[in-house]
Amino acid sequence: MARLISLVEDGHPALPEVMAALAPYGGHAHVIGLTGSPGVGKSTTTAALITAFRDAGRRVAVLAVDPSSPFSGGALLGDRIRMEQHATDPDVFIRSVASRGHLGGLSFATPQALRVLDAAGFDVVLVETVGVGQSEVEVAARADTTVVILAPGMGDGVQAAKAGILEIGDVFVVNKADRDGADETVRELRHMIQLGNREQSVGWRTPVVRTVASRGDGTPELVQALTAHRHWLGESGRLEARRRERARSEIEAIALAELRRRIGGADGLVSDALASSVSRGDTDVYAAAREVLGRVTGEGTRQ
Amino acid sequence: MARLISLVEDGHPALPEVMAALAPYGGHAHVIGLTGSPGVGKSTTTAALITAFRDAGRRVAVLAVDPSSPFSGGALLGDRIRMEQHATDPDVFIRSVASRGHLGGLSFATPQALRVLDAAGFDVVLVETVGVGQSEVEVAARADTTVVILAPGMGDGVQAAKAGILEIGDVFVVNKADRDGADETVRELRHMIQLGNREQSVGWRTPVVRTVASRGDGTPELVQALTAHRHWLGESGRLEARRRERARSEIEAIALAELRRRIGGADGLVSDALASSVSRGDTDVYAAAREVLGRVTGEGTRQ
Repeated sequence: MARLISLVEDGHPALPEVMAALAPYGGHAHVIGLTGSPGVGKSTTTAALITAFRDAGRRVAVLAVDPSSPFSGGALLGDRIRMEQHATDPDVFIRSVASRGHLGGLSFATPQALRVLDAAGFDVVLVETVGVGQSEVEVAARADTTVVILAPGMGDGVQAAKAGILEIGDVFVVNKADRDGADETVRELRHMIQLGNREQSVGWRTPVVRTVASRGDGTPELVQALTAHRHWLGESGRLEARRRERARSEIEAIALAELRRRIGGADGLVSDALASSVSRGDTDVYAAAREVLGRVTGEGTRQ
Repeated sequence: MARLISLVEDGHPALPEVMAALAPYGGHAHVIGLTGSPGVGKSTTTAALITAFRDAGRRVAVLAVDPSSPFSGGALLGDRIRMEQHATDPDVFIRSVASRGHLGGLSFATPQALRVLDAAGFDVVLVETVGVGQSEVEVAARADTTVVILAPGMGDGVQAAKAGILEIGDVFVVNKADRDGADETVRELRHMIQLGNREQSVGWRTPVVRTVASRGDGTPELVQALTAHRHWLGESGRLEARRRERARSEIEAIALAELRRRIGGADGLVSDALASSVSRGDTDVYAAAREVLGRVTGEGTRQ
């Protein structure tokens, strides 16, 4: 399985064959995305969830979506050590997926890695994003259930709103709930969710769960909320819609990566000369884009 | 100018004409990207820099790259109010650029908005990213000079490393440097930069500047570091290389957005039926991507 995921990361030529073979075996796993600012306790929450799901006899996989910084080795290693209690459990699989610089980035590697884990028969796949940005938020939001984690004093709700992660949460967690300011964070969050739901009205009452993940406090309530959401997705028909959107973005990412590869060479779609010409102001950027499109579609340039 | 940037955000049909007209007028502005976790003081730093650059007689524009959450109106409004001291200054221009859900996202809207401001003759354009993720980091990293801001007790260097923002910094700022733990953050950061530079050896000695942006402390040192970096870029020939990469990603984003639009209809590149078929496991994802590619390039599907 680890080798299959490495094929995904490398964009290996055998991937199409592998994915064709796996296609019929998916759709069983509950895919749960976890996101939140650095320092709120995403890894600790992930570790607590692994323990809780294992106690319930479920097989659990974790994908840590890693911006793949050359600096990040140490930090992610720390997370792995924290999860080492599960290292010898054959029904737990933990893996970082590097994505920076990848053709298509997060949107290329993550859904295909998910597909591998799903086909391998895991009951739960947790997708933990390391950064909090547009791509990470989109990856987390394309899970079956998206968990947004906050902590008191980490900048609170307003900062979460700025990071754009409030509207994607199906379940909210206020972690480190034994700290000062937890009540305020919960209150502020409930208020903002209410404001958001007025517009959305999706038929799911978004819960806010308090946890102290390092002690396992609140984990049973979190698992219950996740299970309830999975149940609601199935009953309401939203599960299929979400998975269709996930498939759509996956198809698009693969098609775009393939387009880049076909035209490419070392330069990708755009040659040094063309980029320099735009950078110097000799060619305008749309004319350059038309030239590239002409090569992609095999036509001459057109307006 | 505000209207031109709205055209960019909307992906207006007149954009190619506008960009062709602007092409010869760019290349003057010093483009400075600012990134860092929520709560470190990016907006306050931006405000301090505006004041400092204005005191030096320079015209300053700010692009706040906004994930465009429906929740974020209030938060960004707060930032705007903080910058209101410059509201009546005709040589300061501040604008949020929405991007979520946009064809091509941040990589489509931001460089074109930059192009507008550059052509308009601003001496300095500050690009402040709101989230900290792959896309935001890429946008900030494509500036001429990239500033990474941290604050003591916000999770510090290790968290920054996890967010993948350490290796992109040309200048580092430890803001809120009057707080406990500032010395440790500076030390840790210097250590991590040293580790990184061993591998990179780019001929630029990455400075770490202490600031208390809310009081303007350290702002002169920051401006000096930014100016020194701009000078080094020009002397070393790196400026042209960076701007070529910026142009390259801009051309690519426009070409890809246009491909989506051409194939599109409401569904974009991928129809509901095709996405559902993949989601159900009836079609594998690479076969679906080949089908999409066939339509893009006007050929039949091929292996």
